[in-house]
Amino acid sequence: MRKLIRGGTVVTASDTYQAEVLIEGEKVVAIGNNLEADQAEVIDAGGCYLFPGGVDPHTHLDMPFGGTITADDFESGTRAAAFGGTTSIIDFCLTNKGQSLRDAISIWHEKARGKAVIDYGFHLMIAEANDQVLEELEYVVTEEGIVSLKVFMAYKNVLQADDETLFKTLVRARQLGALVQVHAENGDVIDYLTRKALADGNTDPINHALTRPPEAEGEATGRAAALTALADSQLYVVHVSCADAVKRIAEAREKGWQVYGETCPQYLTLDVSYLEKPDFEGAKYVWSPPLREKWNQEVLWNALRSGILQTVGSDQCSFNFKGQKELGRGDFTKIPNGGPLIEDRFAVVYSEGVHAGRISLNQFVDVISTKAAKLFGMYPRKGTIAVGSDADIVIFDPGATRTLSVATHHMNVDYNPFEGMQVHGEVVTVLQRGAYVIRDKQFVGQPGLGQFIKRSRFARP
Amino acid sequence: MRKLIRGGTVVTASDTYQAEVLIEGEKVVAIGNNLEADQAEVIDAGGCYLFPGGVDPHTHLDMPFGGTITADDFESGTRAAAFGGTTSIIDFCLTNKGQSLRDAISIWHEKARGKAVIDYGFHLMIAEANDQVLEELEYVVTEEGIVSLKVFMAYKNVLQADDETLFKTLVRARQLGALVQVHAENGDVIDYLTRKALADGNTDPINHALTRPPEAEGEATGRAAALTALADSQLYVVHVSCADAVKRIAEAREKGWQVYGETCPQYLTLDVSYLEKPDFEGAKYVWSPPLREKWNQEVLWNALRSGILQTVGSDQCSFNFKGQKELGRGDFTKIPNGGPLIEDRFAVVYSEGVHAGRISLNQFVDVISTKAAKLFGMYPRKGTIAVGSDADIVIFDPGATRTLSVATHHMNVDYNPFEGMQVHGEVVTVLQRGAYVIRDKQFVGQPGLGQFIKRSRFARP
Amino acid sequence: MRKLIRGGTVVTASDTYQAEVLIEGEKVVAIGNNLEADQAEVIDAGGCYLFPGGVDPHTHLDMPFGGTITADDFESGTRAAAFGGTTSIIDFCLTNKGQSLRDAISIWHEKARGKAVIDYGFHLMIAEANDQVLEELEYVVTEEGIVSLKVFMAYKNVLQADDETLFKTLVRARQLGALVQVHAENGDVIDYLTRKALADGNTDPINHALTRPPEAEGEATGRAAALTALADSQLYVVHVSCADAVKRIAEAREKGWQVYGETCPQYLTLDVSYLEKPDFEGAKYVWSPPLREKWNQEVLWNALRSGILQTVGSDQCSFNFKGQKELGRGDFTKIPNGGPLIEDRFAVVYSEGVHAGRISLNQFVDVISTKAAKLFGMYPRKGTIAVGSDADIVIFDPGATRTLSVATHHMNVDYNPFEGMQVHGEVVTVLQRGAYVIRDKQFVGQPGLGQFIKRSRFARP
Amino acid sequence: MRKLIRGGTVVTASDTYQAEVLIEGEKVVAIGNNLEADQAEVIDAGGCYLFPGGVDPHTHLDMPFGGTITADDFESGTRAAAFGGTTSIIDFCLTNKGQSLRDAISIWHEKARGKAVIDYGFHLMIAEANDQVLEELEYVVTEEGIVSLKVFMAYKNVLQADDETLFKTLVRARQLGALVQVHAENGDVIDYLTRKALADGNTDPINHALTRPPEAEGEATGRAAALTALADSQLYVVHVSCADAVKRIAEAREKGWQVYGETCPQYLTLDVSYLEKPDFEGAKYVWSPPLREKWNQEVLWNALRSGILQTVGSDQCSFNFKGQKELGRGDFTKIPNGGPLIEDRFAVVYSEGVHAGRISLNQFVDVISTKAAKLFGMYPRKGTIAVGSDADIVIFDPGATRTLSVATHHMNVDYNPFEGMQVHGEVVTVLQRGAYVIRDKQFVGQPGLGQFIKRSRFARP
Repeated sequence: MRKLIRGGTVVTASDTYQAEVLIEGEKVVAIGNNLEADQAEVIDAGGCYLFPGGVDPHTHLDMPFGGTITADDFESGTRAAAFGGTTSIIDFCLTNKGQSLRDAISIWHEKARGKAVIDYGFHLMIAEANDQVLEELEYVVTEEGIVSLKVFMAYKNVLQADDETLFKTLVRARQLGALVQVHAENGDVIDYLTRKALADGNTDPINHALTRPPEAEGEATGRAAALTALADSQLYVVHVSCADAVKRIAEAREKGWQVYGETCPQYLTLDVSYLEKPDFEGAKYVWSPPLREKWNQEVLWNALRSGILQTVGSDQCSFNFKGQKELGRGDFTKIPNGGPLIEDRFAVVYSEGVHAGRISLNQFVDVISTKAAKLFGMYPRKGTIAVGSDADIVIFDPGATRTLSVATHHMNVDYNPFEGMQVHGEVVTVLQRGAYVIRDKQFVGQPGLGQFIKRSRFARP
Repeated sequence: MRKLIRGGTVVTASDTYQAEVLIEGEKVVAIGNNLEADQAEVIDAGGCYLFPGGVDPHTHLDMPFGGTITADDFESGTRAAAFGGTTSIIDFCLTNKGQSLRDAISIWHEKARGKAVIDYGFHLMIAEANDQVLEELEYVVTEEGIVSLKVFMAYKNVLQADDETLFKTLVRARQLGALVQVHAENGDVIDYLTRKALADGNTDPINHALTRPPEAEGEATGRAAALTALADSQLYVVHVSCADAVKRIAEAREKGWQVYGETCPQYLTLDVSYLEKPDFEGAKYVWSPPLREKWNQEVLWNALRSGILQTVGSDQCSFNFKGQKELGRGDFTKIPNGGPLIEDRFAVVYSEGVHAGRISLNQFVDVISTKAAKLFGMYPRKGTIAVGSDADIVIFDPGATRTLSVATHHMNVDYNPFEGMQVHGEVVTVLQRGAYVIRDKQFVGQPGLGQFIKRSRFARP
Repeated sequence: MRKLIRGGTVVTASDTYQAEVLIEGEKVVAIGNNLEADQAEVIDAGGCYLFPGGVDPHTHLDMPFGGTITADDFESGTRAAAFGGTTSIIDFCLTNKGQSLRDAISIWHEKARGKAVIDYGFHLMIAEANDQVLEELEYVVTEEGIVSLKVFMAYKNVLQADDETLFKTLVRARQLGALVQVHAENGDVIDYLTRKALADGNTDPINHALTRPPEAEGEATGRAAALTALADSQLYVVHVSCADAVKRIAEAREKGWQVYGETCPQYLTLDVSYLEKPDFEGAKYVWSPPLREKWNQEVLWNALRSGILQTVGSDQCSFNFKGQKELGRGDFTKIPNGGPLIEDRFAVVYSEGVHAGRISLNQFVDVISTKAAKLFGMYPRKGTIAVGSDADIVIFDPGATRTLSVATHHMNVDYNPFEGMQVHGEVVTVLQRGAYVIRDKQFVGQPGLGQFIKRSRFARP
Repeated sequence: MRKLIRGGTVVTASDTYQAEVLIEGEKVVAIGNNLEADQAEVIDAGGCYLFPGGVDPHTHLDMPFGGTITADDFESGTRAAAFGGTTSIIDFCLTNKGQSLRDAISIWHEKARGKAVIDYGFHLMIAEANDQVLEELEYVVTEEGIVSLKVFMAYKNVLQADDETLFKTLVRARQLGALVQVHAENGDVIDYLTRKALADGNTDPINHALTRPPEAEGEATGRAAALTALADSQLYVVHVSCADAVKRIAEAREKGWQVYGETCPQYLTLDVSYLEKPDFEGAKYVWSPPLREKWNQEVLWNALRSGILQTVGSDQCSFNFKGQKELGRGDFTKIPNGGPLIEDRFAVVYSEGVHAGRISLNQFVDVISTKAAKLFGMYPRKGTIAVGSDADIVIFDPGATRTLSVATHHMNVDYNPFEGMQVHGEVVTVLQRGAYVIRDKQFVGQPGLGQFIKRSRFARP
């Protein structure tokens, strides 16, 4: 089975050129001009970009949170991702203290199996770093190909780990070739501020932001970076939202420390004023870290452009407004944290980034696909259009415009945080491993065809 | 005429994969597996990397300096470059106040024509920024395809321009789509310190370094960056040698200013102690900026790795020790500044960078070729191996080792600054626009086959 | 002749205590409880602070500027100063290229002699740093006791010196024990922006601010600091207006460089929006550097509180709105730069600083009097209330409030930039060298009683 | 009872002048020339400085540590302090979780009562911040006059508090007007590194330094500063040892945060190489934080000079080499941390600071006495020579030189870390509250005459 994509402009993290792409089975086998189309299905991509499929390094699907569960599971979530141009995700596998890592991973495999329409991997949360866990990590990395370990510095008494846990994880990660991820906010401070806000009767959604100030994120980011240097290890800071955190990552990188950072589409385009929307609608915009003052957006774009931040993840974690976000009426701490972003990540970053002139076309591919694939050991299978790579290709029409909306999105959730946003560019067709998932804007994939990706050990990109 | 390179591993600024590369005429026409070799000459690259030809954005060939002239002209210089794996250079066209830019450029065309064995472009020095010059720049950019303008902040009373000239050049560059380059050292301070050193009887080569302290480079770098921001323009700082300058570039980039930086192989590997070599041998290591204290080297490597600096240029500017460097016996200010670096830039950065684990393979390609091609408007013809690009390809054996030496180098100069350095990796064969220049380590090129490259206007890479 | 001040609270840069102050002739001879009042006139200062007389290190009296001359001369200016609580000023003696320094100083002596009602010193402008000037500086420092040298980095083609001049001045100052002052703005950039604004028809006062952006001040400040370090000398940056400059001074001080900074009352309390006042009233607020965005004010207060900045000078340079400021109608570059501030400096800093809780009482004395006296070699005669010091004492009622206004001020000028500002605290009585200048808010001094102060060489405070 | 000190030069944190000082009872009552000496004992201080008695804000006397107890108690310790020129100390009152603060304070009162020869106060350690403790703090501040609260970020499982405890303490301190002190090192990291070193068989004293890297101090310092800003409170970082920590304090102060820092004489003059002294002598130099690489010393001096750090405390915590330090043979973690510094703090800072030209005479008084008195609410009783202040006066001969040595010191310990150091200047006579403690270099004080000082609430100095 061969496919030949003609007429498109191939775009990778470093190159832009017109060429045909020949696919055989699941792989790209040739890129060239006037390639022989013998027995190949020819796909016309005239006027379109050919992007490597998006790699979303940060999703939470089918995840329980505070007594409820995300609105999207691996089926609806990955289908929406595919519509949006994303062909690989890495989802966070939660663990509990005392639980065997194998067991936790099994549960996550169960969630995804038979449902995912695109390929996926797992990050593994580290709840504690006792000898058994540290020992079991060898299996996790070697056998499961799970090479990224997430530590929470926030969510006191729930997910939060202490510095000892973070440091031991960093040391072990160095030994095993894994990359440590942190949610960097100072949970102790936030816990105090949150209790105080409630005690003072401040219960509206905006208090979510007020009790999670940017200094708390900057502090934790700097701390995680320092611990990384002391452990001679590698770190990836998830969902960087503000200048305070960017500054600490920039400092670390200038010193040559192996510190990487991810931001998310919401921090690049929305701001804290959204949490003040009337009728409790502010709850739709409750993320952790929270949305920030608007001026931080340009700092984040600058950081992507200058290479201080490397990726844009979605932090997909959807909850319906009705029945889920509403749990927090009268108590903002009961609002499930997170939002539906897996589908529009690609569109928002292209439109506000490339179209608006903030980043180049190649930088877009880098932050939306390549760097995540590399940092998380999916490269060269994922993250590029190159001979030998998986034929995960997005045919993208840069001339189209459309409006983001709950009315048209494919996530299983009752609102869209970018409601009404005009974006330039549109995903037309998406191939994964050579097969259509989206064809002429129609979903033609199938649950269960998405494969679990065993990933390679960390190597500097 | 077709060539098929088989068995190699293609390396670009973002990708690494095994594939065959098919060349037709001057261009790469296909990359793939099992490409048809019909009528094509097959080149075996088994075990080798295929790198895009190096782009050296900083050379001085056939250049007068203080009453003498560089030892290498466009023939010997470009031949040595080719031996080293470099297939494009951008040389600095000097100008004088009052001289028409056209005339200056004509002289430089004359120097290169019929001599260059590889492709070349010119940067244009801006000695003054009067209305006539600013007017003539439109011709320079549009007709000559010379899209980079060099301003000297040092060499008082010789090359040095004042801030007004720099600022006007930055503004004009923004209008025309050109990139401004600066030699960033505070020439006024250096001039004072130099006169004082001589007056105090301090005439040895080491005084060259002592009279050009790193703070003078840091200051000028920060000043140029600030002026760039004020002009909303773009800047490329040549030959960054020290932490003081890196810090200012990092600051500028964090603010989102369009500031780029280049370092050179000598700053990455040699240090100020070389200027104290006995028997006047210190003169061999007289560059401006000077070699610095050793700890700066790691700062520079970090900056390349973290994306604070983007390129490594050679600052090729060779003078024989005998008869040329010796002019400065008894007066270090008479030592011609510069050294022979065009040939070994590629080797030194590969060996000390990639082999020593300081940068990745893709970063090597980026700093030695791609980023320079992009910043200076030679991309996509130069700087990558991709369909449609010029077939400028280096076949490189990473398993080989060799020793750098005047005994074996091909520059027309009587010493080598890296004398005795063991390097890993060796250039085997070099193609330019599909034709052999180096074949199995033998020069098979021809003076005059190198073409002048009209370059495209500046676009953010 | 003896005076005994009873009932007051003595405040110095480090101490606050209740005590009587005994004055004999021009000096403080004892401070204590229950001092014998034999034959002494007793002054009741119950409920009042006793501050050392203010030292204003930055005034321009009787100074020509662009074809006009300041509205206040040494008589009206120093009388207003005295009303405000200032008992010593240091005025800037201008020089011209080619002019002997002695001659320039003579002119300034002439301006002050017989007119000043309080003590005064001179800073000396350095227009060029040729051998004759550098030679003559020995006389200036040694014989004239003029130990501060001002270099302008702005006012292209008028006052501006190049880096060579600044550097030579710094070196010479180190040798002689003088302190170099800089007006730190990049004059080349400002000159360009100014011409462009006029060419574009942008002639309103606000363009004064738009053509002197904060980056131009930050750049020049950093440059002056770097040159100071390279010269191993000492620097005092006058009229710091913005965060960009504060940052560079903080950096320098953290490195241990001898860099000091002064801000002015207008930068601490007014902002750039004042330049947009209708009916050309914006012209009243034209200073160089210009007023900045409001958020810079808190940065400046922080810098005073944290010791990054050391003094508050007035930069007194008054021009009438009618007939003088109006010269710039239709061309903002013709607006004489400067304003009437000598009188209200003390009041504004006390009220907005101490009363508003931004700085402590001792810090107030330090920035308004002591540090200037020390940095400029007037200490211990000036700048403190201590045994042996000149009895320059301000009796200040912190409980009073009043309103600043042209209607009540004593400067010879037709507007007050702080018009309508309510301030806490009021100067009741001012003694200079033991004699009343202001007594119960009435002027009882006499032109010509102010003395020229020969100052001591620079010593780190 | 009256005393009149004649012939000396009074030095305060801001002033230097020749005058007589008249003491009546415990207080200074007058300062002046030709004061009446009626019935007063006249003390000749010709050629000497009169300094306010040193205030040492950081001592550990009679303190248990890891199964042993400090060699000096309140008697020997305060007597040595007096010899050195220190007339007030603030000692750290330890607490245990679950213990009532009153009880802990009682124990400390017991230790000091009847023993101290100079005045003293207590800081209170906060081991936990539960509701009872936070409640009891009102009593502590209001009734006991203990207005400084110490939180340990290091000594895992022993003294270390978590961020919640620190944050709650900061908030409570703001409410009560107390100043929070932190030992800023990341205890989790240090705990890990320490265990690892022991596990790897690295047991020599030098490992104490290797397991407490400067990044761990910088991190904790930055964290404490961030929490202080978030709590809108005030912080004092004890024993700052390195550039990493200075940088974070400078940053905080530039932002206007109320963050203060103390260094110690050992960090200013000794370096990490001392820990490698043979025959286990390195153990004598085991402090936490550890001694650092030598280049940090100049950074610390710069920070004192520029006002980034405000005080020099001794961190007196003496253990004999024989029998105490030796407990750590074969296991560096068993070496009691600390050293004998209370006596020589004053001498070392004068000699290496003032005499060596690194700080001014007034800065010396500020860092050795005044700023500590102010920050910790002992001013104006302590910290200055002024009318109404306690007559705590040191008569100091700047012309003398002597050699520091265990042979001549007065601490009850068998070694001196500054053994053999030549210092300029010598304490001749010390008065406390008007009474001799040291007279002509002889101890004439008496245990128990030292009083406990109830201190005032925090106010910005």
